[in-house]
Amino acid sequence: MKRIAILGCTGSIGCSSLKVIEAHPDAYQVTGLAAGKNMDLLAEQVRKFRPLEAAVLGDREAEGLRKRLDGRVGTKIVSGTQGLIRVATLEQADTVISAITGAAGLGPTYAAIRAGKDIALANKETMVMAGPLVIEEVKRRGVTLLPVDSEHSAILQCLQGHPREDVRRVLLTASGGPFRDFSLEQMEHVTPEQALKHPNWSMGPKITVDSASLMNKGLELIEAKWLFGLDIEQIHILIHPQSVIHSMVEYKDGSIIAQLGIPDMITPISYALSYPRHMGTSLPALDLEQVGTLGFMKPDTGKFRCLDLALRAAEIGESMPSVLNGANEVAVELFLRGRIGFLQIPSLIEKTMKAHSPFVIDSIEKVMQADAWARQRAAEFAEADRCFGRG
Amino acid sequence: MKRIAILGCTGSIGCSSLKVIEAHPDAYQVTGLAAGKNMDLLAEQVRKFRPLEAAVLGDREAEGLRKRLDGRVGTKIVSGTQGLIRVATLEQADTVISAITGAAGLGPTYAAIRAGKDIALANKETMVMAGPLVIEEVKRRGVTLLPVDSEHSAILQCLQGHPREDVRRVLLTASGGPFRDFSLEQMEHVTPEQALKHPNWSMGPKITVDSASLMNKGLELIEAKWLFGLDIEQIHILIHPQSVIHSMVEYKDGSIIAQLGIPDMITPISYALSYPRHMGTSLPALDLEQVGTLGFMKPDTGKFRCLDLALRAAEIGESMPSVLNGANEVAVELFLRGRIGFLQIPSLIEKTMKAHSPFVIDSIEKVMQADAWARQRAAEFAEADRCFGRG
Repeated sequence: MKRIAILGCTGSIGCSSLKVIEAHPDAYQVTGLAAGKNMDLLAEQVRKFRPLEAAVLGDREAEGLRKRLDGRVGTKIVSGTQGLIRVATLEQADTVISAITGAAGLGPTYAAIRAGKDIALANKETMVMAGPLVIEEVKRRGVTLLPVDSEHSAILQCLQGHPREDVRRVLLTASGGPFRDFSLEQMEHVTPEQALKHPNWSMGPKITVDSASLMNKGLELIEAKWLFGLDIEQIHILIHPQSVIHSMVEYKDGSIIAQLGIPDMITPISYALSYPRHMGTSLPALDLEQVGTLGFMKPDTGKFRCLDLALRAAEIGESMPSVLNGANEVAVELFLRGRIGFLQIPSLIEKTMKAHSPFVIDSIEKVMQADAWARQRAAEFAEADRCFGRG
Repeated sequence: MKRIAILGCTGSIGCSSLKVIEAHPDAYQVTGLAAGKNMDLLAEQVRKFRPLEAAVLGDREAEGLRKRLDGRVGTKIVSGTQGLIRVATLEQADTVISAITGAAGLGPTYAAIRAGKDIALANKETMVMAGPLVIEEVKRRGVTLLPVDSEHSAILQCLQGHPREDVRRVLLTASGGPFRDFSLEQMEHVTPEQALKHPNWSMGPKITVDSASLMNKGLELIEAKWLFGLDIEQIHILIHPQSVIHSMVEYKDGSIIAQLGIPDMITPISYALSYPRHMGTSLPALDLEQVGTLGFMKPDTGKFRCLDLALRAAEIGESMPSVLNGANEVAVELFLRGRIGFLQIPSLIEKTMKAHSPFVIDSIEKVMQADAWARQRAAEFAEADRCFGRG
């Protein structure tokens, strides 16, 4: 019986994780849940899975949850950063599913590792911002950290049973998002509604916009570098519109091992929890005869500048990936609120990166310092643009 | 240093094997070679690789080889079935590459296993005709038997590092051959020249015709059953015209692991020799951006009747797969000599299978008995058809 705590239980990954757990009551048990503001859904989850503790954003949410549960469930309700860290480090949990979106996921994930928990990692910012620190801590604590991203789960699966020293490169696939065939001109005028319509995957708003700008692929590239100990040059991005091949590993003899499946996060979540087993799921089989054809093409970095910015940040290293990520979070938020255009996302990130003097990252505090700096600077640049009528 | 004997060294697989060996003189050494009639090429190979022994078809060939070598090479020349078995069981060999085409490959391969040699198996008839006997002997002698077929090498690679009990099914891919889009009417009039033009692979004539009739895929299905301990129902055949995905394994969670590569036998040969390593080859990398698209469709068993016949033979079991194979070898030979039409290949096999009463296969002698019976019967049926002006 694996005892599991889920950080971000009411989001897309959190809900899929609970489906996987529910399908195998003999294998998994929920001991902790942490959510932000969706108290209706959290109350439902708490009633169903009866965790020992549930963490919420603040006192107001804690009060709301208590009211909904009406004293009929023995779950202890905690709140704030302290509460989140408590659930992340819960004594009665073996594995923590880290599924909080964005930089906010780093702190609790790091705390979970230090508490000796195995990690199923959906929060890519953890690796983007603090890759070397996290990998070091994972080794020191002897915990297992497995990716929940479909691409990184694919890479992990393609590495099983093949010698690591024989890897030539990794082929990271990208759907290309809803604007794959748009001209730059068309991209200038896209709305948040358009960006939120991903052709293959159903995900939260932040990651869906990142998929449309290809920043998601840039962040995944940095994540892959740290997760699998690769050089940036060993990671090749390939546009594959059908999202059927989730990624591949090429070996020295020219053999390529690929992982395919229907685009549903149930598969990578299930693999991260049952690794190295493939436990049964209720998903339909991928029907390649019905899919018909799979296509491949080069990414257009002229149109999708976020990809280049991520590559550059990865090459510079130190605090730069955190700055890339922080500026991107601010830019996406502004875009979703209709404050900036889609093409201003890379512009804002680039300005922020140019203004940054990279420094060594030797603690989580330093990482958060770079993140805070980037957020403030990006917001200032956006404000200045607005005042001067740019963008 | 792995010491290698090659049975069928002047054929397509034999030549590619020597290329792999030549590229890694520190890892491999040729100690035995066996060829049929191509003495010019064999003499060249003997001069280059200096094996301890070389086997040829008969005394006339032995004489021809001696003349060509002119006493300047210390290789011992042996001939006939005895000579072939000698090279297959050579004391100074660790691994035998079994690359003789057709039923003729079974005897020496079986002898090599009994002599405790590891086997790199390109001769699929060994498994088709005598699967259970071969697997039993492999276990008893504790030898390693690895496939050299690109499809079975792909399956082997896709099984690495994933629990066998989690396999749901195997997806065996087929290019569909040169007549994939032909009507039955068109197929009736195809010539040997047309059948010998495979769209993706360069192979010997027998296997190229088998690829055009899809019998090759039927034989591979039976081979896969025995090699990987699968039920026939677990093997699904998928037409994939580009021959880029060489086969796949689907697991219980819906994950599919696939192996891709350029269509060159160097890769599976290299993997069989260096397993589980992927040693460097001089092959160019597969460029998926250039390939562009990969297609998938159902095989048309109405048009390609050989596939159904193979399935039926596999289900019946016992001596029936040997009869299928023997009748097919006769039919292909007659087709290549212009004596029967392409669509008569399945007709002749079907007649032979219908005339056969399956018996238990408990020795190689019994296997060869079924094979001889099928050959004679198929030849008789063909002769009768000719006399009565059918076909």
